[in-house]
Amino acid sequence: MKSKFLIGLLAVTLAGTAAAQLKPEEAIKFRQSGYAFMAWNMARIKANVEGGQFNKEEVIKSANAIQAIANSGMGALYLPGTDKGTGWEKTRVKPAFFTDKDGVTKVAVAFNKEANEMAKVAATGDAAAIREQLGRLSGTCKGCHDDFKIKD
Amino acid sequence: MKSKFLIGLLAVTLAGTAAAQLKPEEAIKFRQSGYAFMAWNMARIKANVEGGQFNKEEVIKSANAIQAIANSGMGALYLPGTDKGTGWEKTRVKPAFFTDKDGVTKVAVAFNKEANEMAKVAATGDAAAIREQLGRLSGTCKGCHDDFKIKD
Repeated sequence: MKSKFLIGLLAVTLAGTAAAQLKPEEAIKFRQSGYAFMAWNMARIKANVEGGQFNKEEVIKSANAIQAIANSGMGALYLPGTDKGTGWEKTRVKPAFFTDKDGVTKVAVAFNKEANEMAKVAATGDAAAIREQLGRLSGTCKGCHDDFKIKD
Repeated sequence: MKSKFLIGLLAVTLAGTAAAQLKPEEAIKFRQSGYAFMAWNMARIKANVEGGQFNKEEVIKSANAIQAIANSGMGALYLPGTDKGTGWEKTRVKPAFFTDKDGVTKVAVAFNKEANEMAKVAATGDAAAIREQLGRLSGTCKGCHDDFKIKD
């Protein structure tokens, strides 16, 4: 009975470990998913502040999604062995992402700061301020893409 | 000058509208991205409460991402014409999703409720309670999949 219990315990432990240890293609797929979902929400905010009808609730939902994804710790998805490979599609990360630690930290901190600010500004419902903050946030996306994403 | 101004205004309005009007393949891609990103975060919470090392901050980040995506209004991504088609991959939504409004509302409300509760429970750092809530949340994922997702 004791060994059966231990085998069961081991199975549970391994299941937990297995969930934490992603295959490279899974890690790439998950990070591509995070960026794509943020892109949808950036587009929704843009549509609300650029000539379209302004829907405060939609802007808040969008900003909250961007904020939570930005703060989720996506750095964990840049595992060794994910510098090349295919998730949903071939990764476009540049090799520098895995070597330029200071550069990555800089763009990541800037992005998180502006994503947090976006959620705050969205909550005010001030369309002009939201539009300005969207510009700042977009700038941090572009900053990272310029340095660490291979162009289309 | 007046007509030039009006043309400029029209261009801005159309740009806003264009951003809001997704192509079917974009809508499918964005919803697949939302579900995939939530799957990563479900797996992270699972790894933390099933035999692995418990990291409260990671659980909170994961639960917040799930909550924000759950509340983002993904229903808007089930546009007419997205019952079939390919985003990152071929959609597996069942036709019933577009006709059974009451059924969809029921599973969506249940999912949002448990996702919101997951974020609250995560904030307490109580591993046993988080494990229980993860079970409830997973149940609402399964409930929707059983009714509205074509099996692998």
